[in-house]
Amino acid sequence: MTAPLSEFALIERFFRRPTRDPAVVVGNGDDGAVVRPSPDCELVFSVDMLVEGRHFLADVDPARLGHKTLAVNLSDLAAMGATPRWALLAGALPDNDEDWLRAFARGFFALADAHHVELIGGDTTRGPRNFCVTIIGEVPAGVALTRAGAKADDDIYVSGMIGGPALALAAMRGRTALAGDAFAEACARLETPQPRIALGVALRGVATAAIDVSDGLIGDLRHILAASGVGADLELTALPCSVSIQQKLDSAERELALGCLLAGGDDYELCFTAARDARARIEGTARELALPLTRIGTITREPGLVVRAQDGRPLASLPRAFDHFAL
Amino acid sequence: MTAPLSEFALIERFFRRPTRDPAVVVGNGDDGAVVRPSPDCELVFSVDMLVEGRHFLADVDPARLGHKTLAVNLSDLAAMGATPRWALLAGALPDNDEDWLRAFARGFFALADAHHVELIGGDTTRGPRNFCVTIIGEVPAGVALTRAGAKADDDIYVSGMIGGPALALAAMRGRTALAGDAFAEACARLETPQPRIALGVALRGVATAAIDVSDGLIGDLRHILAASGVGADLELTALPCSVSIQQKLDSAERELALGCLLAGGDDYELCFTAARDARARIEGTARELALPLTRIGTITREPGLVVRAQDGRPLASLPRAFDHFAL
Repeated sequence: MTAPLSEFALIERFFRRPTRDPAVVVGNGDDGAVVRPSPDCELVFSVDMLVEGRHFLADVDPARLGHKTLAVNLSDLAAMGATPRWALLAGALPDNDEDWLRAFARGFFALADAHHVELIGGDTTRGPRNFCVTIIGEVPAGVALTRAGAKADDDIYVSGMIGGPALALAAMRGRTALAGDAFAEACARLETPQPRIALGVALRGVATAAIDVSDGLIGDLRHILAASGVGADLELTALPCSVSIQQKLDSAERELALGCLLAGGDDYELCFTAARDARARIEGTARELALPLTRIGTITREPGLVVRAQDGRPLASLPRAFDHFAL
Repeated sequence: MTAPLSEFALIERFFRRPTRDPAVVVGNGDDGAVVRPSPDCELVFSVDMLVEGRHFLADVDPARLGHKTLAVNLSDLAAMGATPRWALLAGALPDNDEDWLRAFARGFFALADAHHVELIGGDTTRGPRNFCVTIIGEVPAGVALTRAGAKADDDIYVSGMIGGPALALAAMRGRTALAGDAFAEACARLETPQPRIALGVALRGVATAAIDVSDGLIGDLRHILAASGVGADLELTALPCSVSIQQKLDSAERELALGCLLAGGDDYELCFTAARDARARIEGTARELALPLTRIGTITREPGLVVRAQDGRPLASLPRAFDHFAL
């Protein structure tokens, strides 16, 4: 048996890599990292914390968790239309299980490499498992996508498919049943979300408002509505989702399926608004990125959020958005 | 009884403030914050995580904890010679105790205001209490203080006094006794450390290397030695400490006092090196800042760290530096 690695050795072994980004003047390993941002760019900052038992289960695959820990932060940059540049990672660990941490680092860095993200700082401590990533990206001055800016008659879009991660979680908790393939697909969406960075960049100057769907579609869309001072009219049948959810919508499990689709969260797709005359351009972006961008409704002048069923009538009640303090 | 506040309401109530920094283009409350850094400046980033039971006790005064959560991060900027600009705060909370959180925010913002720090992002979740702050500062291009740069014959300095926080913790745990006033003073040093920002700025172009003393003097100094490829010769009697520690050094509690002084940690003073010809300038800085800057030893060409007792002989063994994973 070898002696357990110290805090510094853990960082050194699993997270220290040579700096490859010329903008990083001092990389990971000093009291702080020093970066020299490009001129004419604005920097975008976001932070997200993932807690065991709340955002992931204790038996999660560590490589997938490493991926997701970075992915949820990259997703915030995507929603701002920013290009990722740097990340800082702080983690509390209950032990120093090297195999676990090696796999976590592998998942984290695979996604970091895919998006040319440099890890420039970190902190580790012992404690209940918890990861906190701060992500920094760049946008040309003045073009960041915010939640404010949606206008009456704008189209509302969502990328990819939604509801899968919530359905996977419901199946894991025994609240519904999923066939093997459908379960594996939903789990992959839950555990390895793909941040929509290229979409965010493509939407600069096109989207009037954007947010990533982390807490559920209607809850997140409501942030756009509040920041923009408008309302929304959504069509339930337009919402892009898996066959599993479509089938459950037409079954005795309709309430569960509605909850997954409208309030499930953990999707990390982008919900955005754009003027009607941008439709052709957005269709072009969808083709280029090979990513469905589905029109799901319209921004209204009147505040409030309406979801219409197939018959055109508003749903009488909407599932609650996910709230970490309401559960 | 009123309904408990949701995650968003908690942020809104306790942590959302109007943006006052003109460099903040989009503040707290969107997917990310957007900042426009000054030209010709480099940005310095650091992250620290504080976990209940490890970095603070469950019954800590929340306002003091709010102060310390930011202070330990500001201390990293001080060690880089950076001027603080922005912070992001992520927190896991076991409940939504509003009084606790209000006091925490008061302590956090009092220190933020003192250093003109703008909170530009955050995240809250339920979980074992844990706070993670990312701090961003600025330095003129090329002058950041790093751990590399100490040269043979440089003087070694430490600011303020060290050992007090470790002594307070030892007293709290019943491992030593302290008279009421001495205990209160040591507790204040433990719970409300003062980040040495002004000192860090004054040391630009003067210090050859710097680090903040968070894990214990000799452990942190060793980081400078490793990064600079040098050794150090310290004089025990030169180390600035309280009367309580001085007395214990001459008593049966010598081992405890040595541990506090050399390896205690949580001091958040700066340890730095400078050429001999900078002595007058550093004395001037100490007077200007009304902060003791004590010469505690000399950088040596040969690697290794020696601590000499009053008789000039090296201590036979040195206490171990604090390591979150070694306890």
